[in-house]
Amino acid sequence: MATLNCDMGEAFGLYRMGDDEGLMPLIDIANVACGFHASDFNHMRSTVKLAKKHGVKVGAHPSLPDLQGFGRREMKIGREELANCIIYQVGALKGFLEAEGLTLNHIKPHGSLYGMAARIEDVAHAICDAADVFRVPLLGMINTLHETIYTERGHTFIAEFYADLDYNDQGGLIITREHEAKDPEKAAAICRRAVTEGLVKSVGGVDIEVKADTICVHSDTPNAVEIATAVRGALGH
Amino acid sequence: MATLNCDMGEAFGLYRMGDDEGLMPLIDIANVACGFHASDFNHMRSTVKLAKKHGVKVGAHPSLPDLQGFGRREMKIGREELANCIIYQVGALKGFLEAEGLTLNHIKPHGSLYGMAARIEDVAHAICDAADVFRVPLLGMINTLHETIYTERGHTFIAEFYADLDYNDQGGLIITREHEAKDPEKAAAICRRAVTEGLVKSVGGVDIEVKADTICVHSDTPNAVEIATAVRGALGH
Amino acid sequence: MATLNCDMGEAFGLYRMGDDEGLMPLIDIANVACGFHASDFNHMRSTVKLAKKHGVKVGAHPSLPDLQGFGRREMKIGREELANCIIYQVGALKGFLEAEGLTLNHIKPHGSLYGMAARIEDVAHAICDAADVFRVPLLGMINTLHETIYTERGHTFIAEFYADLDYNDQGGLIITREHEAKDPEKAAAICRRAVTEGLVKSVGGVDIEVKADTICVHSDTPNAVEIATAVRGALGH
Amino acid sequence: MATLNCDMGEAFGLYRMGDDEGLMPLIDIANVACGFHASDFNHMRSTVKLAKKHGVKVGAHPSLPDLQGFGRREMKIGREELANCIIYQVGALKGFLEAEGLTLNHIKPHGSLYGMAARIEDVAHAICDAADVFRVPLLGMINTLHETIYTERGHTFIAEFYADLDYNDQGGLIITREHEAKDPEKAAAICRRAVTEGLVKSVGGVDIEVKADTICVHSDTPNAVEIATAVRGALGH
Repeated sequence: MATLNCDMGEAFGLYRMGDDEGLMPLIDIANVACGFHASDFNHMRSTVKLAKKHGVKVGAHPSLPDLQGFGRREMKIGREELANCIIYQVGALKGFLEAEGLTLNHIKPHGSLYGMAARIEDVAHAICDAADVFRVPLLGMINTLHETIYTERGHTFIAEFYADLDYNDQGGLIITREHEAKDPEKAAAICRRAVTEGLVKSVGGVDIEVKADTICVHSDTPNAVEIATAVRGALGH
Repeated sequence: MATLNCDMGEAFGLYRMGDDEGLMPLIDIANVACGFHASDFNHMRSTVKLAKKHGVKVGAHPSLPDLQGFGRREMKIGREELANCIIYQVGALKGFLEAEGLTLNHIKPHGSLYGMAARIEDVAHAICDAADVFRVPLLGMINTLHETIYTERGHTFIAEFYADLDYNDQGGLIITREHEAKDPEKAAAICRRAVTEGLVKSVGGVDIEVKADTICVHSDTPNAVEIATAVRGALGH
Repeated sequence: MATLNCDMGEAFGLYRMGDDEGLMPLIDIANVACGFHASDFNHMRSTVKLAKKHGVKVGAHPSLPDLQGFGRREMKIGREELANCIIYQVGALKGFLEAEGLTLNHIKPHGSLYGMAARIEDVAHAICDAADVFRVPLLGMINTLHETIYTERGHTFIAEFYADLDYNDQGGLIITREHEAKDPEKAAAICRRAVTEGLVKSVGGVDIEVKADTICVHSDTPNAVEIATAVRGALGH
Repeated sequence: MATLNCDMGEAFGLYRMGDDEGLMPLIDIANVACGFHASDFNHMRSTVKLAKKHGVKVGAHPSLPDLQGFGRREMKIGREELANCIIYQVGALKGFLEAEGLTLNHIKPHGSLYGMAARIEDVAHAICDAADVFRVPLLGMINTLHETIYTERGHTFIAEFYADLDYNDQGGLIITREHEAKDPEKAAAICRRAVTEGLVKSVGGVDIEVKADTICVHSDTPNAVEIATAVRGALGH
């Protein structure tokens, strides 16, 4: 059965982002921000605690170094440097998992890092280089370098479908800097079709092949709790 | 026999600090900066590699969040927040140790964090809270809260003596923002006395009780390699 | 007549803080964050534009370098370094004022910098050193070093009263990391008394002497718009 | 007569970069780092003071927000956001100029920002948008968007030739993350030819058209002082 995953712990200092308290009871796995696009040492600790309380599995959600741009600004960065950048963040999160007696479940790159890994070989390899250290599955999209390179490098690949983002006609995600509210029932229906038929309608009206081992809801989508609730129902959880 | 320890990996981006290549072959344990007062993901990786090459044990050298002030600016920070701050940094370093097949040897707080832990209970406890997670020895100074609180909390306490800093008449370290060159032979003689007699002459001419399970040379002291070489000789390594 | 001032532009990247759109029409002068405790180059620009649209005068709201702690973490910093820290921030804000054809109206230090300036001579002098460059009035509290040192150094001192913070029995502000909602009518009544009688009741029930050339409402107080509206009414605006 | 310009003030905290003390007496105009790729409020102040002492004109050297990458990492950033990013930095520098009684002489973008402005229209326009605020000349390279767009937007364009970088066969600069030492006499001869003939030999052996209203020596090139001295001689200063 498809799981529900969510990017969590994206607050920073006094700033809040997303209703983590409302979402955590609804999801199966949490992608926890590691301080490079969002979060800090305090929010990482409390997010790990919250996940533990609800029995949610915790993965790392590393980013390009870009707090001001929320990791949604593409940048040129070499493979070795990028691998180090990811190891640093995943290691930091593992510190909090160790503090709470949990283990790392997976790695899911954030924002532009995710998008770049889908189409730039060196970026996908850098993610694998980091994953070689931690030996956990990687989340990503089929028919991109996520699938081909992660698999070729021997990593477990978990195919992900997005409940709250649109797909272009080539099957790529349309990533916006700020996310918009979506109709929960429509999102649920789209997810049900993605799971059962492996298809989604693109913005251009084309049926795109997708795979939904896990379905992602963004915590910074305005009505994320409503979407997650509807999707959860649709998945028969 | 007293070991030689050194704060290492304090470069940042294109900036260099200290002759790590020259010092690493001379020391027994390295306190590796974790990105909060110095270093970044690239320098942490290369420093861990360099330590591995020379069979040097690696500990974490966490700091207050203060890159611009090199962690030598005291700040008010609560116990829980500070523990999280340290866990983040130690976790990040452990990522690189895991990448290189090494294990964490110890924790030694950096700069103002070290100084504050010597005299502020909450700070010493925050360090213990973090050390509870990683279960490694803590480096510090005798006759300070380092010794009393670390020990009382059940942590292994390793007493440290400074080859390149002066002591005041109360036995406290005189920490300066930038370190000055010291005469290597004088430093070696001072270390020999610290090890054999457990005494050091303060700046005011008073004999101060010290303990030297390990001797620290700062990599950013201008003639650190010369000092380390002389001290190493004096210790009979 | 007492003016109404408000700390504005405290968003950062995708993070929001306070209802600047709602507050700007209600206030006379805006203290605009300069990127060290909050804000960034984009929010500074848009905040200056918003102030211009509503004919609100713009002052700088510089902070200690502490984005993660929102400038509410005290730190040790020398006078010269602190003056430079403030000049940098005020200069940056002036860039945006120049872009929008406005001039700098005043300087009001933020958070811990404000609190430290009230009682630490070097800090108050550092603020004056920076103000010497820009030649604008300084906001602060009477019966503190704000008043004595700013005045002694020849700067115009504008006495400030806080609509949404409590005072202790010694007349000091009780600064909390996050602000609580206050009853708007009570806040308005307290402000009216501060203006007309120069008195406020402390948390211990003591009448404290205050002066209210200008009244501050914090934009991050949850019901800031309601408080500002009520206070504005009470001041006869 | 061609002037000599140099990127200055690229230290950060305790870190040093380049021999500013040695170079300042040799140059005519200084491009001063503004804290985004290098420098901080203290080094900006002391660099402006040093320039003042030697009668050197001061321009701003703004960068992409990338301290860890020294501004040599390309990133995607929109025109409006980039203009704000530059205004912030130039404004901050103007604060220190105001403190020392100097005026802003020019703007020269740093590193990847410079390179991107040469070939990406939106980036060149963002630089003009910022320059519209401060009304000072812009430094750049002929036969790039520097020349065409800066000029078309009505800004004074000062053509720059690089004494210590190689040119590719298309006339573009070969920008490396760390600069290498160059033979001072060779560099001087190359500069003389650039000034008198308007030509430089590319790495592929092709004669490239250049223009040298001003000649740049990088302060982080290892033998920058020797190069600057030789070039100064060659220019007949």
